[in-house]
Amino acid sequence: MKKVTVGLCGLGTVGSGVFNVMARNAALVNARAGCEINIVHVGARRDRADCPTGSVPVSRDIFAVVEDPQVDIVVELIGGTDTARDLVLKAIANGKHVVTANKALIAHHGAEIFAAAADKQVAVAYEAAVAGGIPIIKALRDGLVANRIEWVAGIINGTTNFILTEMRDKGSAFADVLKEAQRLGYAEADPTFDVEGIDAAHKLVILASIAFGMPLEIKKIYTEGITKITLEYIRYAEELGYRIKHLGIARESADGVELRVNPTLVPDDSLIAKVDGAKNAVMVMGDAVGPTVYSGAGAGSEPTASAVIADIVDVARAISHDKSKYDHHLPVPYMGFVPSAIRSREILPIDSIHSAYYLRVVVADKPGVMSEVTQALSKAGVSIEAIIQKEPQRGETQVSIVLVTNVVRESVINSVIADIEQKDFVAAPVVRLRVETLGT
Amino acid sequence: MKKVTVGLCGLGTVGSGVFNVMARNAALVNARAGCEINIVHVGARRDRADCPTGSVPVSRDIFAVVEDPQVDIVVELIGGTDTARDLVLKAIANGKHVVTANKALIAHHGAEIFAAAADKQVAVAYEAAVAGGIPIIKALRDGLVANRIEWVAGIINGTTNFILTEMRDKGSAFADVLKEAQRLGYAEADPTFDVEGIDAAHKLVILASIAFGMPLEIKKIYTEGITKITLEYIRYAEELGYRIKHLGIARESADGVELRVNPTLVPDDSLIAKVDGAKNAVMVMGDAVGPTVYSGAGAGSEPTASAVIADIVDVARAISHDKSKYDHHLPVPYMGFVPSAIRSREILPIDSIHSAYYLRVVVADKPGVMSEVTQALSKAGVSIEAIIQKEPQRGETQVSIVLVTNVVRESVINSVIADIEQKDFVAAPVVRLRVETLGT
Repeated sequence: MKKVTVGLCGLGTVGSGVFNVMARNAALVNARAGCEINIVHVGARRDRADCPTGSVPVSRDIFAVVEDPQVDIVVELIGGTDTARDLVLKAIANGKHVVTANKALIAHHGAEIFAAAADKQVAVAYEAAVAGGIPIIKALRDGLVANRIEWVAGIINGTTNFILTEMRDKGSAFADVLKEAQRLGYAEADPTFDVEGIDAAHKLVILASIAFGMPLEIKKIYTEGITKITLEYIRYAEELGYRIKHLGIARESADGVELRVNPTLVPDDSLIAKVDGAKNAVMVMGDAVGPTVYSGAGAGSEPTASAVIADIVDVARAISHDKSKYDHHLPVPYMGFVPSAIRSREILPIDSIHSAYYLRVVVADKPGVMSEVTQALSKAGVSIEAIIQKEPQRGETQVSIVLVTNVVRESVINSVIADIEQKDFVAAPVVRLRVETLGT
Repeated sequence: MKKVTVGLCGLGTVGSGVFNVMARNAALVNARAGCEINIVHVGARRDRADCPTGSVPVSRDIFAVVEDPQVDIVVELIGGTDTARDLVLKAIANGKHVVTANKALIAHHGAEIFAAAADKQVAVAYEAAVAGGIPIIKALRDGLVANRIEWVAGIINGTTNFILTEMRDKGSAFADVLKEAQRLGYAEADPTFDVEGIDAAHKLVILASIAFGMPLEIKKIYTEGITKITLEYIRYAEELGYRIKHLGIARESADGVELRVNPTLVPDDSLIAKVDGAKNAVMVMGDAVGPTVYSGAGAGSEPTASAVIADIVDVARAISHDKSKYDHHLPVPYMGFVPSAIRSREILPIDSIHSAYYLRVVVADKPGVMSEVTQALSKAGVSIEAIIQKEPQRGETQVSIVLVTNVVRESVINSVIADIEQKDFVAAPVVRLRVETLGT
């Protein structure tokens, strides 16, 4: 059996998972790969008790791994964008294939990295960068290759999905659930990256590029976090037949591409609505296949390792018969399209997107108010798909009108909201959330 | 751009879908494939108004396609196992790569076909054979390659899922829904193949072989259809928190491999429970990644075409740089494992499997009956996870005891049932269905 060698940079949560799963399932993985894959060099700042590296040499300087002439495939699992970029570019310059789980690296420096890799005719694989163990990159680049992709919508951050799920299930406030998530290790001490949608934005921009064949456009993505979501929002959404999920959405239309991460109401009988806890799910709408859904663990040591090893096997299968042959042939384009076919699109400013909307208007409890609100909507050409007005609580003088509109341009709904907020019976700013029917 | 040529055998529902999607999305597919893919020869008994083949030559004799020296990839979409087998073997003998959507062909003749293909070093791809447009074969062979697969469970027949969904949603009887499904084209005039689980068995045996690395064992699979499922079963299952789905299940344990298609109760908060209508879904449990779920259209013209074209692109990507190179290297083993690693397993007889069970015992409404039933279970070491006993309807003298057990060996539950059925207060044969918790 031919041999392929791996150099592993980083022995953190994911790195140790890769090492341990490769050791545990070695015979199985080799039988599937059709070659013998060995980790021959590890770069790590420190050893780990839960990851005995045995006779494999461990360098404290990770750059020693990319300089090792023995290594065919460099696996980058150190995270961050600066050293990781240097490391990956150096590996490519040395003619090594690269596997990475680093979404920020691909989202920010993908163009530069893929150009360098194309020049050296080496592979750069990044399945683990999006949705952890779910093989969504391969699904888009291989399985759905026949389709014009209309849109991609996904729960691609486990932390925010865990928080929203716990708020709903336990009736707890955002701040309390966040603390719990931090205690359980589902959220970082500084949770900004997750709860503000930045991590999801990195992943979405990768999905959109592969889906539509466009450059990685991290700077143009719109992000909205979940910090403003209260329990009351969640309960009202439920009464209307929806759940609130923090979705990344990429949609191509004749006008351009929508690219946004935001809390979204989804119908509670859709599959995505049922994806709870730290799980991820991606839904893809293709013109031939229709909607398909991919769900599983979006993070964690071994789930992410599963995707990293899948990439190692992909590269190993392609090079094992004759390592020089890969020089002449990259079977799958880095971003799913040959570089010459990748073209920029207009990324729509957020007020040009089209969506259905959930509105909550807190009003004085007096006659004629409901009619004034609905008139403001209909005057602007907005239809109401569902509406609830609650009886005032004992002693309350205000009531909430909660409604879902048809699909309209966001600038239109914003004008209507400005109009409604000027009425003297309106007691508070109007709450507005986007609603996706997900093709149902 | 290099060119790759396709010969299309069969212009039925799937064949016309392939032709039309290839025409509609040609530029997109070529940009992803990295080569120009053209259908250069069609074999079909008759033309179709909804599939104008234009200047592409159409032969009435499909064997003319596999003899055409111009054709690189033969796509077999004629169905059946006899002529299809001859056609595919002839194509392979002629050194052509093969793409097929034919599950019966692979399940029955896969071993022979893959051996012939290995000998000629050509590809045989069959993504469309299982779960239509869902890229589940690629997920198992590529995306989940790092994992020891513990089990696979899937809704892999759209007809039976449609029937069970309609029975539940509309409160209709099996026979009525079957007639409706036949009218809508979801079921054949002779529905045996679908409703008795034979079609699902073909698909399951393919999934199991790839998951575990074992030979295709169609003869050893246990199948149980849905014809005995009544509305009453569905309602009682609902009260206990379950839905009834017609699942294909393959599970490996130390004892051997379970391989069976049967109506199954699944928890109503599991994703698979929410996969309704003609949709398919496959859940895979891997030791590293945990559970992942893949859902989408399991049949239909363009969804199936989506999978066929994905296979065409896979092969085209691998051969386009130099058609002679594929001779030296098959990147992915046909069944996911190198042939030397494929080994037979003990397929468990159905009474040796382990499962939880749903039982319905119709008994005379008199004191002590419940206690006798529960004693019969506990005497055999069977625990009760949930139990309902209904008040008798006015004028009725019989009541139903409905319960779900813990996981036990099937022979044990069969003995208990035999024991219970001998009691004089038992009014009818005990109904028994298997229950899967799907790792939840």
